[in-house]
Order: sequence, then C-alpha cells, then structure tokens
Amino acid sequence: MNLPKLIITDIDGVWTDGGMYYDNESNEFKKFNTTDSGGVIFCNILDIPVAIITGEKTEIVKRRAEKLKIKLLYQGIENKLKVAYDLVKRLNISLSETAFIGDDINDLKLLNLVGFSAVPNNAPDYIKNKVDFVTKKNGGEGAFREFIEKILIENDKLESVLELYLIK
Amino acid sequence: MNLPKLIITDIDGVWTDGGMYYDNESNEFKKFNTTDSGGVIFCNILDIPVAIITGEKTEIVKRRAEKLKIKLLYQGIENKLKVAYDLVKRLNISLSETAFIGDDINDLKLLNLVGFSAVPNNAPDYIKNKVDFVTKKNGGEGAFREFIEKILIENDKLESVLELYLIK
Amino acid sequence: MNLPKLIITDIDGVWTDGGMYYDNESNEFKKFNTTDSGGVIFCNILDIPVAIITGEKTEIVKRRAEKLKIKLLYQGIENKLKVAYDLVKRLNISLSETAFIGDDINDLKLLNLVGFSAVPNNAPDYIKNKVDFVTKKNGGEGAFREFIEKILIENDKLESVLELYLIK
Amino acid sequence: MNLPKLIITDIDGVWTDGGMYYDNESNEFKKFNTTDSGGVIFCNILDIPVAIITGEKTEIVKRRAEKLKIKLLYQGIENKLKVAYDLVKRLNISLSETAFIGDDINDLKLLNLVGFSAVPNNAPDYIKNKVDFVTKKNGGEGAFREFIEKILIENDKLESVLELYLIK
Repeated sequence: MNLPKLIITDIDGVWTDGGMYYDNESNEFKKFNTTDSGGVIFCNILDIPVAIITGEKTEIVKRRAEKLKIKLLYQGIENKLKVAYDLVKRLNISLSETAFIGDDINDLKLLNLVGFSAVPNNAPDYIKNKVDFVTKKNGGEGAFREFIEKILIENDKLESVLELYLIK
Repeated sequence: MNLPKLIITDIDGVWTDGGMYYDNESNEFKKFNTTDSGGVIFCNILDIPVAIITGEKTEIVKRRAEKLKIKLLYQGIENKLKVAYDLVKRLNISLSETAFIGDDINDLKLLNLVGFSAVPNNAPDYIKNKVDFVTKKNGGEGAFREFIEKILIENDKLESVLELYLIK
Repeated sequence: MNLPKLIITDIDGVWTDGGMYYDNESNEFKKFNTTDSGGVIFCNILDIPVAIITGEKTEIVKRRAEKLKIKLLYQGIENKLKVAYDLVKRLNISLSETAFIGDDINDLKLLNLVGFSAVPNNAPDYIKNKVDFVTKKNGGEGAFREFIEKILIENDKLESVLELYLIK
Repeated sequence: MNLPKLIITDIDGVWTDGGMYYDNESNEFKKFNTTDSGGVIFCNILDIPVAIITGEKTEIVKRRAEKLKIKLLYQGIENKLKVAYDLVKRLNISLSETAFIGDDINDLKLLNLVGFSAVPNNAPDYIKNKVDFVTKKNGGEGAFREFIEKILIENDKLESVLELYLIK
C-alpha cells in the first residue's frame, strides 16, 4: 500500500501481550513496551496521525497516550468500525487510506475494511488468515513498531525517516 | 465429547502462568490474559455456564469474575471434586456432561471424573498423562481460550459461534 | 543422593526469574510461581524441612514464606555458607545430608559443600558447571518444584508421595 | 578492546525488556533482573565506574541506582552523546576508552563513538548491524551482565574477578 494517511491501533494484545494485572484493591496494570514508542516517533516525523481505538476504558491507556502525545484516543468502544468510520470522515480520508493493527474478534470488521490490516503473531489463526500482514513479534514485544516499520519499508521510507530522526 | 453443559476452570496456572506477584505491603497481583475473555464470550453465546473453582481466595479473582460476568465463583476450595459435584447436582446435570481445565495435583480428582479434561502445556507430565487434551499454549497465554475453541471445533461450532458474534 | 534431611533454597533467580519490580514510590514486587508450592507440599509430606536463605531482605519473601508455612527463613544473608552451617549443626545433621538450589555467585560456596546441589537452567555457565543438577526450567518457571521432584524420583518416592497427597 | 575506563549503560530495553507497567493511578513499574547486579559487582571489583544515561526520568531508576550504589546517574537525557562527552571529559578519559550498551535509535550516535558498543539481541536489526557486540540475551534477561562478562573474557579477567569475589 501507499503511505497511509492514518494509523489506527488496538491496545490489549497489540501494545501489550494481552496481560491484565489485577490486584486485591481496585488497581490494574498494563505492560507497554518502549520499543513501540519508536513507531509513534516515526509516524510523527511523517506527519501521519496515530489513533487508538480500544474496547477497554482505563486511566492506564489514557496515561500512555498522553506520554506519547497521541490525541486521537477512543476508549470503551464496542463498535470499532463505526468509530473509525466517523474518524476518517472527519479527517476527510477513506478507510482504504488507513492502516490498522488489531488482534482479536472485536477487530475483525475494521480489519476487513482498511487499506492495510495487520495482527501480531499470537493472534488466533482464523484472524491471521484474514489480514494483509502478520508481525513476527507477539503483542507487547514491539509488534506495533514492526507494523510501522513494515509500512515504511514497503514505501522505501525507513532509511530516510531514520536520517530525519538522527539530524534532529 | 458433545457440547458440555458446564465449563469448569481453575485460575492459577490456567488463566495465569502460575505467577503470584507479592509486594512489600499487603497487596498481590495476578496477570490475566484478555484472549481468555473470548472463551467466556463463546460460552455465553452458546448459553454454557462457566464456573471458576480455585484453591486460592483473593479479591483479584473476584474482580476478574465480575468483569467477565461469571457468577459461579468458588474460591478457597480444598476439595474441588466435592464443590463440582454439588454444583452439577444443583444444575441437574452430571460430571460427565462437564468439561474442566486445571493444571496441578489439586485438580487431579476432578480431572479424572469430568467428561472432558484438559491442562495447559506447562502442567507436570504426570498430570498431562491423565487428561483428554493438553493445550498447546501455556497457562496465561490463552490456554482457556484454546480449551473452549477445541470443544467448539470438535462439535463443529467454531464458525457458527464466530458468525453469531459478528452479527451482534 | 539419599533423601536429604534438609532442603535449602535461594529465592531470587530460583523462585523467581530474577525479576525485581520497582515502582516510583517505595514498593517492590517479586513474582512467585504457584507450581513451586507443590515442591513445598511434597517436602511437608516427607517431613523434610525447607529453609530459605537469601541475600535480599524484603517483606515480600516474608509474606511468601508465611503463606507456605516455611519457618526457617534467613534474609539479608551475606555469608550463606555460615548460616547454613549453623543451621545444620542446630538440626544435628551435616551439610552432606542437605540439598541446596541457588543460582549465582553468592551461592557458590554453599553449592560446593552440600550433598546435592542444583541451579536453574538460566544460571551462568561457570556456575552450572559446578553443580550436581541443572533443572530444565528457568528460575520462576517451577525450577524449585523440578528440583524437589528430581530428588523424589532419584529415591523412587514421587509416586508414593503423590498417592499420599491424594488420599489426604 | 582493552578494559574500558568507564561503562555506560542505558536502562529501558537493556536492564529491562522495554516493559513499562502503568497503573490506573499515577504509578509505574519497571522490572529489573538481579543477575545484572553481578555485572555491577564485577565492575566494582575492577574499579571501573558505571554510568547510567537514560531518556526517561523516574524514581524507579533512581531507586535501582541507589540499591546498586551507582552514583553516575543521568536521567531525562535527550542528547546522550553530549552527556557522555561531558562525563568522559570530566573523568579525563576519552570515548574510545568507554564501553556502552544501548538498544534503540536514541543510543545510535553514542554507540557509534565509544570504544566498545553493544545492544541486546532484541534490538532492531538496523541497530544491531552497527555495534561491536550483540548479547545473546534479550534486555532484562541479563544482557548487561553478559556485556560485562564479554569485556572480562576478552581481557582474560573473568576468572580472576570471580576469585577476587569469592575471597572477599
């Protein structure tokens, strides 16, 4: 595909290994991976906006999005396709100009309609079979970074983006 | 086996990798995997109740059960066979119509008596040798989901359940 | 070796994968594995006392020892050999009647002097080379359980211990 | 290389697997590995100072540095090369007498200029291609310890350092 005009990403199972750490009180942890922040940096260099659309709703993801300065944050979403559709309409682009990485059944409808779809290697086979790209890495191990680098490599952009990063 | 009329699951070592995170105060964490929640969703679609029977007793598991709307929650259980037996009697079914996934010696008696028994791949060999099915995944990596999908596949139900999920 | 009269175990790198979780406040976590508690249960059935000797000193390990009813707890120990020596003297046994599982350089002196020495698979090569037994599992994955089962198997006791456990 | 006069290390992705644990409140965890503390001990025995230079700024790393008595701690650093350059100047040595282990794009400039450069095995390929040594271990699994041992082995010092440790 060409460089997408929007990157959409799920969180649990993509930015994490699906792990949800519960405690005896009312707190919860998710484990992110700093290597994925490099993927966000590359998108910033190319002025491609990144949107998070996730079924869960936590302060955890809000904090992570703020840390990485991601403003397009949609949490607690049952119908991801509808939210994505409203977003691309607002941005005046189409779903076919969008790349999306998810990992499970609640991502299927949106995965089917974007221009470039991906899941991490640990997704169920019946979902892996339906996407354009399966990352070598599992969720939480840098699958999002690999997804972004795949897009850059396909468009012959990885080296120039790295150069732009290094001359900052 | 036919579709079971009840699914019973252990927690530690099945929904988790056996990890128990202790801190310096009085708190504890367990790490669940969101992929297992898909297994619960599939059971809900088929109206098969899910029961948790675990030797530990924590707020952690209570919170996870509430999140997944699992009402049959039995914690702090020394004699899992007795609790399971009382439960099937109350539900007017038999142990042979029940499927159970455990992982260790305190699950052995119940594993021996249910209609379909399973453990994750990381269970001890002398327990793996005694069950109907060993998941490819380890506990905490989606072993419960795989256990449910195995049952659905054996009954030619996985595709129709996925379709039912997607038309919701 | 014959059945030891005392089991000594290190904690970090044996009961854990060496992980020390620090937070921004003053708390810390260690991740234990419930499968290791089976090793303690087997020792209890055979009336073999279990002692913990560790260089660190935390409430975490105190809580874990209490949970498993291990009374021989020695934390903050620089000279593990001295503590072990005093302990066996008090118990009226010898180091050669003791089995010890450690994982790193501060365990070396004691590993050299016990009757049966072991480390997990992820210990440094120059320590693995000096012990009687290297578990297949890494620390935190059930290495302690495997160490105990190895001793039981060598003494043809695993099956009878399992039977004793099941008739309880 | 000869024995370096200074060891510089990144934290996230080197001392950790890149994991950043966020909670619902305002806390964060990092998971260190006690095996890396052996690397610091070896440096202490040889009187080689260890410096931490990291882009993040947390109490977590401050606590870990204090635990290991590492005084050269530089957090929140955007330009690691500049900080390293100022440090070697102050210590009256050169970058070519320094060894550095990093893992990602913000480490590249410094990796290119030190006497001995390394990354863990899970670093991106386009960074692995540019360093002197790639550890077999991933970040957080003891990559820093392996990096230090590699330097000791190359200088025929590992055995003597171990002996010095054991006669303490």
